[in-house]
Amino acid sequence: MKLTVTQENLHKALQNVARVASAKTPLPILNNIILKTSKNRLLLAATNLEIAVTHYIGAKVESEGALTIPARLFSEFISNLPKGNIELETKDQHLTITLDHYTSTIHGMGAEEFPELPVINEANTTQITLPTTVFKRAISQTILASSHDSTRPMLTGAYFHTQNGELYLAATDGYRLAERKLIKSAQPTPIAAIIPVSSLQELVRITPDEQEEITILIDENQVRFRLQDIEVTSKLIEATFVDYRQLIPQKSDITVVVDKDEFSRITKVASLFARESAGGITIKTDPASQTVSIHSIASQLGENTSEADVKVDNEGSVTLNSRYLLEALGCIDSPEVSFSFSGKLAPCVLKASGKTDEYQHIIMPLKS
Amino acid sequence: MKLTVTQENLHKALQNVARVASAKTPLPILNNIILKTSKNRLLLAATNLEIAVTHYIGAKVESEGALTIPARLFSEFISNLPKGNIELETKDQHLTITLDHYTSTIHGMGAEEFPELPVINEANTTQITLPTTVFKRAISQTILASSHDSTRPMLTGAYFHTQNGELYLAATDGYRLAERKLIKSAQPTPIAAIIPVSSLQELVRITPDEQEEITILIDENQVRFRLQDIEVTSKLIEATFVDYRQLIPQKSDITVVVDKDEFSRITKVASLFARESAGGITIKTDPASQTVSIHSIASQLGENTSEADVKVDNEGSVTLNSRYLLEALGCIDSPEVSFSFSGKLAPCVLKASGKTDEYQHIIMPLKS
Repeated sequence: MKLTVTQENLHKALQNVARVASAKTPLPILNNIILKTSKNRLLLAATNLEIAVTHYIGAKVESEGALTIPARLFSEFISNLPKGNIELETKDQHLTITLDHYTSTIHGMGAEEFPELPVINEANTTQITLPTTVFKRAISQTILASSHDSTRPMLTGAYFHTQNGELYLAATDGYRLAERKLIKSAQPTPIAAIIPVSSLQELVRITPDEQEEITILIDENQVRFRLQDIEVTSKLIEATFVDYRQLIPQKSDITVVVDKDEFSRITKVASLFARESAGGITIKTDPASQTVSIHSIASQLGENTSEADVKVDNEGSVTLNSRYLLEALGCIDSPEVSFSFSGKLAPCVLKASGKTDEYQHIIMPLKS
Repeated sequence: MKLTVTQENLHKALQNVARVASAKTPLPILNNIILKTSKNRLLLAATNLEIAVTHYIGAKVESEGALTIPARLFSEFISNLPKGNIELETKDQHLTITLDHYTSTIHGMGAEEFPELPVINEANTTQITLPTTVFKRAISQTILASSHDSTRPMLTGAYFHTQNGELYLAATDGYRLAERKLIKSAQPTPIAAIIPVSSLQELVRITPDEQEEITILIDENQVRFRLQDIEVTSKLIEATFVDYRQLIPQKSDITVVVDKDEFSRITKVASLFARESAGGITIKTDPASQTVSIHSIASQLGENTSEADVKVDNEGSVTLNSRYLLEALGCIDSPEVSFSFSGKLAPCVLKASGKTDEYQHIIMPLKS
């Protein structure tokens, strides 16, 4: 294999691909990335067997070939080189890299030892194209509600699915739940795929800001995200997602409409006094004064009460985990939020005020 | 005690003072800061018994008093409040903090339990005033060469001293050494003070960018840095500093003049292949081609050779720790550096090219 690529292109591709190979793995070959010529392009790819990332860059290919090479060293080396044309040449299982005054030889392993990259039969997939900004924001709004508990694998994924012809992304850990409506699905085929959160995080990291759309291909076992020159392919989590919609209250007794920043601030301040009580803060509404107050107490340290002026229809109180509430508020894209609850036991619902169905975040109360 | 201060001033003062109190300490009172009225000002202070930081802010004092209060909680609470006037009022050992809709009570401890703040008799001190930018840069250029080895306390400090009427800051860990000349000392009194590196780091962190000058007061056991409204007082390390000047070569056989960024880059690239050999890279000069080359090798991974065009007077080679070389290059404030050495055993000298005596950084070679 002998070819020339630019440092800029190679560096960018390695930033996308190398991280997947850097994960801890018992198989040394998975610390490598594979380089493979393909006509006038160079393929760079890495996999951790759950997710695979491929990136094609333009290359002037003199002779075809393939090799795998330690991802971290190769990537750090290339990122420290100046801009310019890099010549890559293999000899046995060594890769020689030359740019001006810089010459390195890195020892690789044969491409034949590398696991096969995942193949998808496009004819059997459901395909959806979404604006990048919408999908990236939907991911960040939902995955924080997912679980890290690997004994319940289903909850470590986000549920990408259709319901009444509309497309949703949802996640829950049993204590909180986030659901984002995406565009109306153009597909007659229903979708019900649980995508690992780690794969979605990798996708968000890789997707460049200038990428306008992401095409999503789903079959029974895999999902592929297709960007310009880049593909991220992930296994799906094999399970049936919890019937989470039954957890969402249809109506609540008390609804507060409040400035998001002010609600965040009084929650943050109250959380400082809630470290002893696992973050528990008590929210109380007062329709007479049209205020909400948050109280928290730490026997050793002191106590706090903070108020905000709001619109509220009923009197009530509920105790919540302050971190959950803060994180949920951070997911809402509107200056005013609507916070609804029904006494101390029913789930609380947070939405952007006015918009009723684009995004909702449910938090279970703490026993107080 | 009852008084009013602005959130902005209190927040700023707490940022400077609270960190000293946050250090791990066996004495719970040292996790507190002391608040004390002083005419129309409020004193905030904290100490870890090695260093003490005091900060005065303007206050509208209704009644005098003093109290100590947990630094972390108080500081986080104040930093999360909106801008405005904060009322502080003590009752027994509780501090009530009120701003608009926010009311908190924090439990404190009596001011009488707080250790006495360090006192300096100004008449017995040597005083020097330096431009802030000069002193901050001198600190960052030298303390990286100090030691973290607490069994040799002298080397965990920076040596602030006069030599032939000139003022220097120097530090060494035995493997490398950095010396920065400050202004010509205006003092007839010689200075020889070893200042703990941790105190200098705290000073750098606290000193605001808009502070033009720092006044330094030194007596036999203590140093005080005086800024507008803020004082940082530190114990000195009681020891005689190593006679480091004997380690600095008076002349070298080989001198390379090289572009700093390019030298950094080829060093960085070479260091990637030097992880097996404790960072060891071999630098070789070639007067015929007027180049310097750096070679490094990792038996498992591969090897690297990088070159740069330089001005060089002699042929030679030396093996250095690449991290030391990179950090030293980062301390030099000039686009061209002069790198001098004499074979494989003598110390190497790095300076800004042209400027011979403002800053020098010495690195001992590795055995190769």
